[in-house]
Amino acid sequence: MTLFASLPPLTPFQYNVVDNVFSLTVATMGAAAIFFFAARSLVAPKFRPALMVSGLVVAIACYHYFMIRLSWQSAYAYSDGAFNPTGKGFNDFYRYADWILTVPLLLVELVAVMGLAKEVARPLLTKLVIAAALMIGLGYPGEVSQDWTTLMIWGMLSTLPFLYILYVLWVELGKSLATQPESVRSLVSLARILIVITWMFYPIAYAIRGDSLPGAIPGIIPEKSGLGVVGTQVGYAIADLTAKAGFGMLIFFIARIKTETLSPEERAEQLQATALMT
Amino acid sequence: MTLFASLPPLTPFQYNVVDNVFSLTVATMGAAAIFFFAARSLVAPKFRPALMVSGLVVAIACYHYFMIRLSWQSAYAYSDGAFNPTGKGFNDFYRYADWILTVPLLLVELVAVMGLAKEVARPLLTKLVIAAALMIGLGYPGEVSQDWTTLMIWGMLSTLPFLYILYVLWVELGKSLATQPESVRSLVSLARILIVITWMFYPIAYAIRGDSLPGAIPGIIPEKSGLGVVGTQVGYAIADLTAKAGFGMLIFFIARIKTETLSPEERAEQLQATALMT
Repeated sequence: MTLFASLPPLTPFQYNVVDNVFSLTVATMGAAAIFFFAARSLVAPKFRPALMVSGLVVAIACYHYFMIRLSWQSAYAYSDGAFNPTGKGFNDFYRYADWILTVPLLLVELVAVMGLAKEVARPLLTKLVIAAALMIGLGYPGEVSQDWTTLMIWGMLSTLPFLYILYVLWVELGKSLATQPESVRSLVSLARILIVITWMFYPIAYAIRGDSLPGAIPGIIPEKSGLGVVGTQVGYAIADLTAKAGFGMLIFFIARIKTETLSPEERAEQLQATALMT
Repeated sequence: MTLFASLPPLTPFQYNVVDNVFSLTVATMGAAAIFFFAARSLVAPKFRPALMVSGLVVAIACYHYFMIRLSWQSAYAYSDGAFNPTGKGFNDFYRYADWILTVPLLLVELVAVMGLAKEVARPLLTKLVIAAALMIGLGYPGEVSQDWTTLMIWGMLSTLPFLYILYVLWVELGKSLATQPESVRSLVSLARILIVITWMFYPIAYAIRGDSLPGAIPGIIPEKSGLGVVGTQVGYAIADLTAKAGFGMLIFFIARIKTETLSPEERAEQLQATALMT
């Protein structure tokens, strides 16, 4: 088993689109990390852990996109008008390491938004985290495979826990809508739709890479076109930006509105918490 | 005496497993450092020093794993389908420097969890720190040795203070269980078990390297297989992740529950402390 996917040669335009999207992602994730940590003091104490988790998710992603970009730059060398693979490979594992760390944290954020009781939240989170580990673990062998069939088999296996997670989140977030204060109901509803839409980018980005593999769809897709690699990398970056920085912003807005609309008793309680915990 | 252990050639898979585990460890330790420092404000003032110490431990480890990874990348070069030693060596001293700094801090955390009176805690900590210095100092000559016998002799010598530390921690943490509030007793008990299990990884990882040395177990283990080096590096990384980031999380949960279950007098006292120290 190899750890790296095979790479096709790229045009300078294709190479640079990916390189630049990586840099944009590093900058956005880094800025989002600073914002989420600093913005903790803008919400009531009970919402601060959610902002810290958002901050951690984008900080971890910032590190990984920096490393992903370095790996991209060492995987290609320019000569004679084209970017050709150097043979060092592009390290897909950074993405999977990132997901192993950040998907459970994103699930913590999501369950926190639902505002469930601890005895309900904990088993729900356990189920989701196990499914997430399966989803990521099963996806990796396909990601680094050298042929279309292997890619598809692992991709399909990984899709089962993926769909399970989306289904559970959709149902549970739907249920929690009824108990949410009027003022944030539309935002929580938006969060619910945003998750499904942004997460759908991942299997699409995963499958697009097949286009760069030999024997993908003979006669229809030219073998080893650069489009697969470019589509996958740009697709993952967009999905990560939306699911991490975008979703974190939504959590921030929800926490902000909930802070502004605390009941008098909750407000008194949160003031005490602030006094104790700064 | 050499400063570096001898290295066998590795397959690309073996080399990259270690390289990726190092990157994952850098990311995890860095994220944990941000979390522990930020999470200080989520616990009462008297528990904040423990979180700061946790934060320092993982911040120091983040730096060292970054350096360990650079040393790994310069110790090997790819040619003809394999990663061969460049002769620059892999610097094991980073690990020992890390342990010299972080093991005493981990012991401070552990003794803090017990909640002992100062006159009991101080001599206990002194004994443990001296044993830790012996354990680390005696382990190093074996770690960088070029033969199995030297490795085993220093390893055994290092194991004596190692077992002494585990024994003292086991007994003292056991004693402290009786005085812990009901709400955290199971977590402190878990901490006690976690220490013994995670620390056991270290001697195992240490011994596995023998597999890469000439004359290890003639006829049984093929000489200079890459498995020893890979096993040692991955084993140490897993042990460090659990003993530092994982253990720090446990300390955080214990501090959080203790904050929530403060008695009214303690709460008043801690409120005063917050006002004074912010």
